[in-house]
Amino acid sequence: MQQVKYLLPEDRIPSQWYNILADLPEPMEPPLNPQTLEPVGPDDLAALFPMPLIMQEVSSERDIDIPEEVQQYYRQWRPSPLHRAYQLEKALDTPAHIYYKYEGCSPVGSHKLNTAIAQAYYNREAGIKHIATETGAGQWGTAMSLAGAAMGINIKVFMVKVSYDQKPYRRAMIETYGGEVIASPSDQTQAGRDILAQSPDSPGSLGIAISEAVEVARSRDDTNYSLGSVLNHVMLHQTVIGKEALLQLEMAGEYPDVVIGCSGGGSNFAGLSFPFVGENLRNGKSTRIIAVEPTSCPTLTKGKYAYDYGDVAGLTPIMKMYTLGHGFVPEAIHAGGLRYHGMSPIVSHLYQLGQIEAQAFAQNTCFEAGQQFARAEGIVPAPESTHAIRSAINEALRCKEAGKGEVILFNLSGHGHLDMQAYMDFNAGLLVDHEYEVGEVKHALEELPSTAPTG
Amino acid sequence: MQQVKYLLPEDRIPSQWYNILADLPEPMEPPLNPQTLEPVGPDDLAALFPMPLIMQEVSSERDIDIPEEVQQYYRQWRPSPLHRAYQLEKALDTPAHIYYKYEGCSPVGSHKLNTAIAQAYYNREAGIKHIATETGAGQWGTAMSLAGAAMGINIKVFMVKVSYDQKPYRRAMIETYGGEVIASPSDQTQAGRDILAQSPDSPGSLGIAISEAVEVARSRDDTNYSLGSVLNHVMLHQTVIGKEALLQLEMAGEYPDVVIGCSGGGSNFAGLSFPFVGENLRNGKSTRIIAVEPTSCPTLTKGKYAYDYGDVAGLTPIMKMYTLGHGFVPEAIHAGGLRYHGMSPIVSHLYQLGQIEAQAFAQNTCFEAGQQFARAEGIVPAPESTHAIRSAINEALRCKEAGKGEVILFNLSGHGHLDMQAYMDFNAGLLVDHEYEVGEVKHALEELPSTAPTG
Repeated sequence: MQQVKYLLPEDRIPSQWYNILADLPEPMEPPLNPQTLEPVGPDDLAALFPMPLIMQEVSSERDIDIPEEVQQYYRQWRPSPLHRAYQLEKALDTPAHIYYKYEGCSPVGSHKLNTAIAQAYYNREAGIKHIATETGAGQWGTAMSLAGAAMGINIKVFMVKVSYDQKPYRRAMIETYGGEVIASPSDQTQAGRDILAQSPDSPGSLGIAISEAVEVARSRDDTNYSLGSVLNHVMLHQTVIGKEALLQLEMAGEYPDVVIGCSGGGSNFAGLSFPFVGENLRNGKSTRIIAVEPTSCPTLTKGKYAYDYGDVAGLTPIMKMYTLGHGFVPEAIHAGGLRYHGMSPIVSHLYQLGQIEAQAFAQNTCFEAGQQFARAEGIVPAPESTHAIRSAINEALRCKEAGKGEVILFNLSGHGHLDMQAYMDFNAGLLVDHEYEVGEVKHALEELPSTAPTG
Repeated sequence: MQQVKYLLPEDRIPSQWYNILADLPEPMEPPLNPQTLEPVGPDDLAALFPMPLIMQEVSSERDIDIPEEVQQYYRQWRPSPLHRAYQLEKALDTPAHIYYKYEGCSPVGSHKLNTAIAQAYYNREAGIKHIATETGAGQWGTAMSLAGAAMGINIKVFMVKVSYDQKPYRRAMIETYGGEVIASPSDQTQAGRDILAQSPDSPGSLGIAISEAVEVARSRDDTNYSLGSVLNHVMLHQTVIGKEALLQLEMAGEYPDVVIGCSGGGSNFAGLSFPFVGENLRNGKSTRIIAVEPTSCPTLTKGKYAYDYGDVAGLTPIMKMYTLGHGFVPEAIHAGGLRYHGMSPIVSHLYQLGQIEAQAFAQNTCFEAGQQFARAEGIVPAPESTHAIRSAINEALRCKEAGKGEVILFNLSGHGHLDMQAYMDFNAGLLVDHEYEVGEVKHALEELPSTAPTG
């Protein structure tokens, strides 16, 4: 019979993460302090993050040890399975071999726990008792809440108000794990009170929620901040996905021609693809690496490579990245995890160097692909993951046209069981396809003194 | 490091189901035709089921081959993992070893697909193009809908109207897989129209939905009926769970002292426990086997062992089972999968023979156990599964008291991602604990001519 899944025993969970900073053909430009425009130093970040995470942010070591306790916790759901999508191949009648790495088998239903558990661990080791964070659609807040329960840290989640109201079940998961959820903007912070004074009915935004969480973290010594994407250490922790996939494809006797991930802040894309980018850079492989984003928030495909803030309020260091401007508010598509104005600086750097490709799709064609996948493979994908599936199906159809048996690997970053409203709207014909229109785009440096370094 | 999961390679998926009928110390009493009160023969059932399923219903062969194509499909998520619950053990400070078999990793999030895929297979082989079925909370309808997509059979699901209205996301999953969902009672059947004529606002019931599905299946040659629990062949298909668990515990070097499953119609309980009951019966083992039910529908603990109908309308064969009476309508607890007036005849028979135990718990104490489990082990359990967890935690605390390192195994039959309203209600203090009150209980034979055999 055909082997459908490639499983690794627990003792083959990678014991090290892969740090792509060690292999970049050109170094990245540093994040800058928004006041001084000098590169950010460890001390600038110490109020928010424990030192090991700050060091991971800038490390040039290729292999970074995963702490034993984190490896032990990973065993609750890792190694995640690598599936061969035979049923989908059959439905498409393609000679391509389609594989997917399934991260939805984690207890929270997505890849987010890979870094949440690591971040909570380093914070606990540093004596931190509380972590403040933000969440948009809710996946990240859910993962941090469980990680807090595992490591004995209290988690306070500022949840964008419109999601807080629209997604009560995500909120219920956060609370089931013991996390505290606060609708943002809130009256618990100066940032929140300022917004509420101006617009009492503000629906909130990720940018506002970040400001609130950062303010709380800065105000207390025993409290830190955590972020679920964008930063180098977050990408690093997710590479456990791609390192496992390399071993699993080896079991299958295959090597991918194409590796695909959806990309909002960049974490699941980086997690699967960076180890393969590393093979391209170091070992002469030539796998195509594709980041897939929504047409409503096409950061890589239509953004500008510039220094910009990570949040709307401009509290974070400014980072060189592809961005639609920190003031950009994407349409309320169902793939909430892909609604970020910027892109991980490492992913941006690789894109600018031509090491990776980018594609953008509107949401209806993505849900169509997601539904086709569900009927063939059984798993109902998260709205974010349908973007990767759309691209994978397109590539498989290209292979069919060309009669090529290429090996396609994509990241199925999560299941959609908490997102069924999206499928209802899709089937009822209610989903609107948004095209990004270039308007007035503000980046940080255009607003800062002209002493800024050239980017 | 501690091994957390015991995984089997795909080629160790059992190639045969375990048929406990072969090992019963006393034979079961046969189902009866409600008109003639004679034992039901294959011809009575041929309008509803394909012949291989009818034969499995009465087979005395111990090992029944799983068709290759079903085994191949099982590989999409099986073998399911066996977890050692180290974090829960630590939280309870118990010397007991707690293991759980996790069926929530199936694409539909529960064990139901184990039999759905088998039933769809046998129907397709028999040339059947359509299957009508019913669903209460929605798990079974979801599984049959996916099984239909896999086997190219159209699935029509009569969904109890109150669930249809209250659980739109379950409905959305059924539709995402391509199944058709109809609120029951409907105007598509005589049974439905009769009810609607009497009570236009009827909230529906599983009994009415069964009548509608059976009526549709009887009316067309290319259409059959399927049921997700109770019947012998359904219990049989679920034994793949317990057969895997036997192999996995062997890998762990353990054998269970206690095996626990929640029990509504009996299928996940039977699936895990029957292979262990078989070991008790054949090989001198003495594992305690515990079925756990809600206090609001305590079929085993407070029901009567009698001949009764499987549905409210009295269309099905009458079966000897523990029953609260076919007219009993349980309170609307969140564990919708446990709201059945009867119990699988095999499970009933084993209980009557003293081979298994039964316990009943109210829903608040179950959700409390479920939340404790979620914080320790990460997985948010389905409301049904929290009943098994409540029992497992109680047994582990008994072991702590007695200083005994017993091995406890329970079935985590599904995740709760589609049931978060239940956790919200629990945390808001809105859950009511219902105690069953014995009222007027009618069984089939009391309503039938006195020529009935003594039960």
